[in-house]
Amino acid sequence: MDSMSLIATASIVTAGLCMAIGSIAPALGEGNAVRQALMAIAQQPDERNTITRTLFVGLAMIESIAIYCFVISMILIFANPFWGHMVAKAGG
Amino acid sequence: MDSMSLIATASIVTAGLCMAIGSIAPALGEGNAVRQALMAIAQQPDERNTITRTLFVGLAMIESIAIYCFVISMILIFANPFWGHMVAKAGG
Amino acid sequence: MDSMSLIATASIVTAGLCMAIGSIAPALGEGNAVRQALMAIAQQPDERNTITRTLFVGLAMIESIAIYCFVISMILIFANPFWGHMVAKAGG
Amino acid sequence: MDSMSLIATASIVTAGLCMAIGSIAPALGEGNAVRQALMAIAQQPDERNTITRTLFVGLAMIESIAIYCFVISMILIFANPFWGHMVAKAGG
Amino acid sequence: MDSMSLIATASIVTAGLCMAIGSIAPALGEGNAVRQALMAIAQQPDERNTITRTLFVGLAMIESIAIYCFVISMILIFANPFWGHMVAKAGG
Amino acid sequence: MDSMSLIATASIVTAGLCMAIGSIAPALGEGNAVRQALMAIAQQPDERNTITRTLFVGLAMIESIAIYCFVISMILIFANPFWGHMVAKAGG
Amino acid sequence: MDSMSLIATASIVTAGLCMAIGSIAPALGEGNAVRQALMAIAQQPDERNTITRTLFVGLAMIESIAIYCFVISMILIFANPFWGHMVAKAGG
Amino acid sequence: MDSMSLIATASIVTAGLCMAIGSIAPALGEGNAVRQALMAIAQQPDERNTITRTLFVGLAMIESIAIYCFVISMILIFANPFWGHMVAKAGG
Amino acid sequence: MDSMSLIATASIVTAGLCMAIGSIAPALGEGNAVRQALMAIAQQPDERNTITRTLFVGLAMIESIAIYCFVISMILIFANPFWGHMVAKAGG
Amino acid sequence: MDSMSLIATASIVTAGLCMAIGSIAPALGEGNAVRQALMAIAQQPDERNTITRTLFVGLAMIESIAIYCFVISMILIFANPFWGHMVAKAGG
Amino acid sequence: MDSMSLIATASIVTAGLCMAIGSIAPALGEGNAVRQALMAIAQQPDERNTITRTLFVGLAMIESIAIYCFVISMILIFANPFWGHMVAKAGG
Amino acid sequence: MDSMSLIATASIVTAGLCMAIGSIAPALGEGNAVRQALMAIAQQPDERNTITRTLFVGLAMIESIAIYCFVISMILIFANPFWGHMVAKAGG
Amino acid sequence: MDSMSLIATASIVTAGLCMAIGSIAPALGEGNAVRQALMAIAQQPDERNTITRTLFVGLAMIESIAIYCFVISMILIFANPFWGHMVAKAGG
Amino acid sequence: MDSMSLIATASIVTAGLCMAIGSIAPALGEGNAVRQALMAIAQQPDERNTITRTLFVGLAMIESIAIYCFVISMILIFANPFWGHMVAKAGG
Repeated sequence: MDSMSLIATASIVTAGLCMAIGSIAPALGEGNAVRQALMAIAQQPDERNTITRTLFVGLAMIESIAIYCFVISMILIFANPFWGHMVAKAGG
Repeated sequence: MDSMSLIATASIVTAGLCMAIGSIAPALGEGNAVRQALMAIAQQPDERNTITRTLFVGLAMIESIAIYCFVISMILIFANPFWGHMVAKAGG
Repeated sequence: MDSMSLIATASIVTAGLCMAIGSIAPALGEGNAVRQALMAIAQQPDERNTITRTLFVGLAMIESIAIYCFVISMILIFANPFWGHMVAKAGG
Repeated sequence: MDSMSLIATASIVTAGLCMAIGSIAPALGEGNAVRQALMAIAQQPDERNTITRTLFVGLAMIESIAIYCFVISMILIFANPFWGHMVAKAGG
Repeated sequence: MDSMSLIATASIVTAGLCMAIGSIAPALGEGNAVRQALMAIAQQPDERNTITRTLFVGLAMIESIAIYCFVISMILIFANPFWGHMVAKAGG
Repeated sequence: MDSMSLIATASIVTAGLCMAIGSIAPALGEGNAVRQALMAIAQQPDERNTITRTLFVGLAMIESIAIYCFVISMILIFANPFWGHMVAKAGG
Repeated sequence: MDSMSLIATASIVTAGLCMAIGSIAPALGEGNAVRQALMAIAQQPDERNTITRTLFVGLAMIESIAIYCFVISMILIFANPFWGHMVAKAGG
Repeated sequence: MDSMSLIATASIVTAGLCMAIGSIAPALGEGNAVRQALMAIAQQPDERNTITRTLFVGLAMIESIAIYCFVISMILIFANPFWGHMVAKAGG
Repeated sequence: MDSMSLIATASIVTAGLCMAIGSIAPALGEGNAVRQALMAIAQQPDERNTITRTLFVGLAMIESIAIYCFVISMILIFANPFWGHMVAKAGG
Repeated sequence: MDSMSLIATASIVTAGLCMAIGSIAPALGEGNAVRQALMAIAQQPDERNTITRTLFVGLAMIESIAIYCFVISMILIFANPFWGHMVAKAGG
Repeated sequence: MDSMSLIATASIVTAGLCMAIGSIAPALGEGNAVRQALMAIAQQPDERNTITRTLFVGLAMIESIAIYCFVISMILIFANPFWGHMVAKAGG
Repeated sequence: MDSMSLIATASIVTAGLCMAIGSIAPALGEGNAVRQALMAIAQQPDERNTITRTLFVGLAMIESIAIYCFVISMILIFANPFWGHMVAKAGG
Repeated sequence: MDSMSLIATASIVTAGLCMAIGSIAPALGEGNAVRQALMAIAQQPDERNTITRTLFVGLAMIESIAIYCFVISMILIFANPFWGHMVAKAGG
Repeated sequence: MDSMSLIATASIVTAGLCMAIGSIAPALGEGNAVRQALMAIAQQPDERNTITRTLFVGLAMIESIAIYCFVISMILIFANPFWGHMVAKAGG
């Protein structure tokens, strides 16, 4: 198993797992937030504006965590410095 | 085990697991959101418009996380840069 | 273990596991949604139309996640680009 | 371990596990749905028709997920393209 | 480890595990359904006919999932196409 | 490790695990059903006949799942076709 | 590792694990049933005869599952057909 | 690793694990039963005789499961037929 | 790795794990029993004698399970028949 | 496997897992905090300013933990001292 | 890996794990008992003497289980018969 | 695998896992604390100063645990005495 | 891997894991105890002396279990008899 | 893999895992304690001094467990007697 295929394999597997594992908690967290927002609207319809505004701010912060994972995955696939070094060395 | 089959194997396994694991939380989260929406409609029928609108926004955000995983899986199967490099090198 | 049998093995195992793991959360999520829908109808019989309509939209979105997994499994079994490459190379 | 026995082994194990794991969530989900249906009938006997109709639609959608797994298992045992390729090559 | 014993071993282990794992969720699901049925009868004795009829339909659907697993196990033990191929080849 | 001892070992281990794992859910499910039956009798003593009859039907269906596992275990120990084939071949 | 010691080892380990794992659920299930019986007696002292009779029937059915495991363990230790075959062959 | 030490090792490890795992559920089950008995006495002091009698019958049945495990462990240590066979063969 | 050190190692590890795992459930069970006893005394101070007597009987039965594990551990360390056989054989 | 590819592989895998695992708890924690904030607004609309201010401070502190993980991942990918040392040594 | 270092290693690892695992349940159990005692005092201050006396008896019994683990660990480190045998043999 | 790359690999993996695992509990704990603070403000708006002050003290103590993990990670990456020793020895 | 480094490695790993695992339950148990103490003070302020006294006795007993683990860790690092024996033998 | 790098690797990994695992329970426990303190203040504002004092004592005791883990980690990194022995021997 040469160096390039090892690094490629590790990048592929890690990128996939990072996104997969990184999707668990944000999805559950957003589900909980949305769930409670619906309950809050049902209880206090007059506050629907405050509730949906707070909900969207919260969803944005939770989504940002999922996006960190997506960014790491994309870096590992398309802008991987270790792969770049190996390709440069092989081509040099 | 040569490089190409190793990368192909890793891509196949990772694509499958990424989608499989990545389906757990969004499905549970959407289930929770839908569950609560139905309860909210039962409690406050007059707010059914606000509730379903908030529900659909929330479902869209949770679904987006499942779609990130689907995108990663598709990239690994059909637009894999490491596989492309290897095929180019083998064919060069 | 030659390349073709390795890729075939990986595709078989991954296709099966992807569908198997990918069935867990959608089934649980749909079960929860249906459960709550029945409770909501029992509490608010007059809203049965809104409830069943919202339920079916929600079930469709959750089912779509299970279908992503089914699609990935089918692609891995019947339209696998890595297997195609290997077969073409072996036959070339 | 030659290619044919490897693919046969992988198909057997995957078919079994796919059905086994794929039975967990649909059975639990259907159990939950039935459970709630009985509770709903006890609470609101007059809505028994709406409840059982919604229940059966829900059960059908959940059962469909179990059937996807059964289909994948059957394909792997009786219509496996990789096994077919190997048999054809061995017999060719 | 020759091919036949490998396939035989895989079939034995898979058949056993498939039935074993496949018994978990249906048994729990049926337990839940029966549990709730008893509670529903205690709450609403006049609906005992509707309740037991709905219960039996539900149990039948859940039991069907356990039977899928039993079928896969039986196919793997008594009608295994891979084993048949190997026996035919060995005897041919 | 010759073929016969491999198949014998696999049969022994699988038979034991199949029964062991297959006992978990039925026992828990029956425990839940009995538990609720006792609670239902305490709440609605006049329905004790309906309750115990429904309970026994439910227990029978759950017990049937445990018996499937027992059957598979017994088949693997005393009527194992793979073992029979090997013994016949060794003795032939 | 010769055949006899392999089969003996597998039988010992499987017998022990089968009984050990097989004791988990029946003990928990019986604990739950007894627990509820005591609660039911406390709530409805006049039904103590029906309750204890139903309890003992339920305990007997749950205990039967533990006994299946005990039977498998005993068969594996004292009436193991594979061990018998090997001993006969070695002595023949 | 000769046969005797292998069987001895397997017997030691299995005996210990069988007792260890087999102690989990009975102890939890008995704890639950005792817990509820105390609660039942506090709620219905006049039924203390029925409660403690039912409790002791239940504890005896749960304890019997722990004793099955103890019996298997003792058989494996002091009356192991496989070890006896090996010792007899070595001494013969 | 000679026979004696293998058996000694297995005995040491098994004795430790048996006691360690065997301490989990009795300690939790006793904790639950004591917990409920305190709650029962707070609810029904006049029954403090019956409660503490029932508690001590229950604690004794749960403690007996922990003692079974302690006995197995002690037998494995200080009265191990397999070790005795090996020492006798080595010294003979 | 030479040193450079080993370090590169370890960095890739660790960076991905660190971000993936590190996203679980912050996302769940933020989801809980947002959930409760919505409930609090529904209960006490007049305190919406205090609630959202406290919420944002809390979210910031929880987000900081996710950012620690992101920082570690970035350091491992783009400012890894071990990789730097190896590159310098290889180039020296 | 000679016999002495093997036994020493096994003793060290087992002693540590035995104490570590053996501390889980007693600490949780005592925590639960203390927790309930405080609640009981808050509910029924006049019974504070009975409650604290029962608490201390219960804590002593739970602590005894942790001490069994400590004793096993100490025996394995300072009074290990297998190590003694090996040292005697090596020195003899 | 030479010493330096082994230590470098271990440091990289450990630093990442330490921060990743170490982020789980503080984030959940802070989420719980913030959650309750919002509930407390909603229940007792007049105590908002005491509540937020206590909250911030508590968050600081929980954050300190996350920072211990961050410190360990940073020491392992940038001030690792074992790596320093190896570099000094290699350069000496 | 010589004996001394094996024993040193085992001691290091065991000492760390023993303290790490051994910190889980005491910390959770103390957290529960403190939690309930605060609730008890809020419910029954007049009993604050009895409550805090009982709390501190309980905390001391739970802390003692964590200290057992710390003691074992310290013995393994600084007063390890197996290491001492090896050092003496190496130096003798 | 020579002795020094083995011990260094074990120390690095153990130090990191010890702190990481050791941070789980204290952080959760402190979170629970803070959570309840806030609830207690909201219920009984007049007791805020007793509550915060008891809280800080409790937090200090829980924090002490996290600090034990930090101490073990620091000893393993900066004052490791096994490493010291090896360095002395290598330098001697």
